[in-house]
Amino acid sequence: MIKLKPSVEKLQAYFVNDIPYRVKLDANEGSNYLLQDGFKIENFQPNLYPDSDSRVLREKMAVYYGCRAENIMVGNGSSEMINMVINAFCDKGEKVMSFVPSFSMYQTYCDLCGAEYIGIPSEKDFTQNIDKLIKEATENKTKIVILCNPNNPTGFMYTRTEVIKLLENVKDSLIILDEAYVDFSENSVVDLVDNYENLIVMRTLSKAFGLAGLRVGAMIAKEETIKYVWKVKVPYNINILSQYAAEQALDNIERVKSYIEGVKKLRQELSFTLRKLDFTVYESGANFIFVKAPVENLFEKLMDCGVLIRKFNYGGEVFNRITIGTKEENEILVEEIKSIMGGNQ
Amino acid sequence: MIKLKPSVEKLQAYFVNDIPYRVKLDANEGSNYLLQDGFKIENFQPNLYPDSDSRVLREKMAVYYGCRAENIMVGNGSSEMINMVINAFCDKGEKVMSFVPSFSMYQTYCDLCGAEYIGIPSEKDFTQNIDKLIKEATENKTKIVILCNPNNPTGFMYTRTEVIKLLENVKDSLIILDEAYVDFSENSVVDLVDNYENLIVMRTLSKAFGLAGLRVGAMIAKEETIKYVWKVKVPYNINILSQYAAEQALDNIERVKSYIEGVKKLRQELSFTLRKLDFTVYESGANFIFVKAPVENLFEKLMDCGVLIRKFNYGGEVFNRITIGTKEENEILVEEIKSIMGGNQ
Repeated sequence: MIKLKPSVEKLQAYFVNDIPYRVKLDANEGSNYLLQDGFKIENFQPNLYPDSDSRVLREKMAVYYGCRAENIMVGNGSSEMINMVINAFCDKGEKVMSFVPSFSMYQTYCDLCGAEYIGIPSEKDFTQNIDKLIKEATENKTKIVILCNPNNPTGFMYTRTEVIKLLENVKDSLIILDEAYVDFSENSVVDLVDNYENLIVMRTLSKAFGLAGLRVGAMIAKEETIKYVWKVKVPYNINILSQYAAEQALDNIERVKSYIEGVKKLRQELSFTLRKLDFTVYESGANFIFVKAPVENLFEKLMDCGVLIRKFNYGGEVFNRITIGTKEENEILVEEIKSIMGGNQ
Repeated sequence: MIKLKPSVEKLQAYFVNDIPYRVKLDANEGSNYLLQDGFKIENFQPNLYPDSDSRVLREKMAVYYGCRAENIMVGNGSSEMINMVINAFCDKGEKVMSFVPSFSMYQTYCDLCGAEYIGIPSEKDFTQNIDKLIKEATENKTKIVILCNPNNPTGFMYTRTEVIKLLENVKDSLIILDEAYVDFSENSVVDLVDNYENLIVMRTLSKAFGLAGLRVGAMIAKEETIKYVWKVKVPYNINILSQYAAEQALDNIERVKSYIEGVKKLRQELSFTLRKLDFTVYESGANFIFVKAPVENLFEKLMDCGVLIRKFNYGGEVFNRITIGTKEENEILVEEIKSIMGGNQ
């Protein structure tokens, strides 16, 4: 068989589990609240290529993100754009840096284009030392620094002041702020894109908007940076239906804001409840919490009763990431945990 | 500003013209016939990530393509998959070959990953010499050979026998058969994927199905090849709505077949009419014709009256590519051409 190039040969195929479930708290998807009644699409022309520039969508996003349409490029999920930017800027062997643990696809995107991925270890308590990142980025001639803020899967959140410290001290690297979860905190730096031409902020409709199925993400940067990166944008990357549905959703920003407030409240309640059950719950700025459970094999035991969460193994220890569900979903989760812990004692 | 890698720095941003039109015959889009009444989507869950494996869609495609779901990978248009395959197999500097002129994005995808693109010139009359391609592919240690059949933009079509000659003689290169337009001829080799493990056939719903707006394409190969390439497939690349709409469309294969027959008939009629008007019309196996007009600036003159076609400049000569429209659209085209030619005399 003709061989794949060496940097990708080692990759594992990504297969998504297809486990039946009652409650799905494993993928940080938001609730179905913006398009819950479905929608009817009439007078549409599926035969025509979609608007390659997604003009209307970008105009509507600009209102929410507080910028201009010219600051935005949209893609088939923010992941398409992170992949595109790494590939476009990094020649073979050039360096991309982020904290670990973080979103595992950063490493994959590096392998896909032959860039070298460097993971900077977080502290024991999963906090991240920004000075360490600044030092390593500068000393390693890093082409791209990716900061996932809040961080997936740990929920760790930098303040704006700390992100600005990074931006002020690392001027020779492209800085990707992956803000997929930032709607659930108040620390976005999207308003700073005009001040730093090496800053690219990635946002998504997959989390706070509850529209993961549409695959719509946004890359926000200084207008000159967007224009420059447009060279590598493939045409027609967002289909006509996702553009239409996202536009409908973006007409309901007040509902998004109120949904976000609800998630924050539920995050606080679930954290409180789990701490009372002897879980270590890390501070989170996202729509999930990262925990250390007081029982073994929580992931497997919850799966057995139809509750899906995520499991991570770091330094020989098991941690879990739990998406904040609806009030009812969280109640089922807690009941099942109590039942598992009761059975354990 | 932080610089893009050298192979992409030279790229031009792809901006799509936004010219008002009466008749659009510039992008080889099919007619809106499968989902012309729009559709209503209920009980859908836009908040959940789409089925990353697109299982139902692949099952339905398998019926049309005469293979099994395991032979198929789907993507955000077949162009996403051509890009993905070139990137996955070609390390920096490795060679990709196709005839020129052909689909211009092949060169772009090579630049995006740093592969070297080699264009093999077609003959003066835009026919393509398969022996020349076999010779060059073998002598140049080519990693990937791409054959666009029927060829875009010339419409040139190889017989199955000639494609098999390529497959029999080039075993050390991956062979991508870009069959985006093959529904309009009878020369597909999709039934041969199990015989050649280096063969990858690309198909699309953008042309014969009239669903360019959905961005759904298929890569069809031997099951082992699909499994192997799955390593580099990014998760969730087709959104939930396009999957749903494409599944609906694939339930109506009889309408697709009858649409295709209609286009072939209209292609013959339009070719006949334009030849009578002193156009050189090249033989085409696609839903467009490639022509040399007997008047100068046909593209510009037609645009002035709201009829969009495409213009190409090869060796100092201007050629046009005209999508086969509906009967009514073709009539408007011919009327406008007659009026332009009348005004010219």
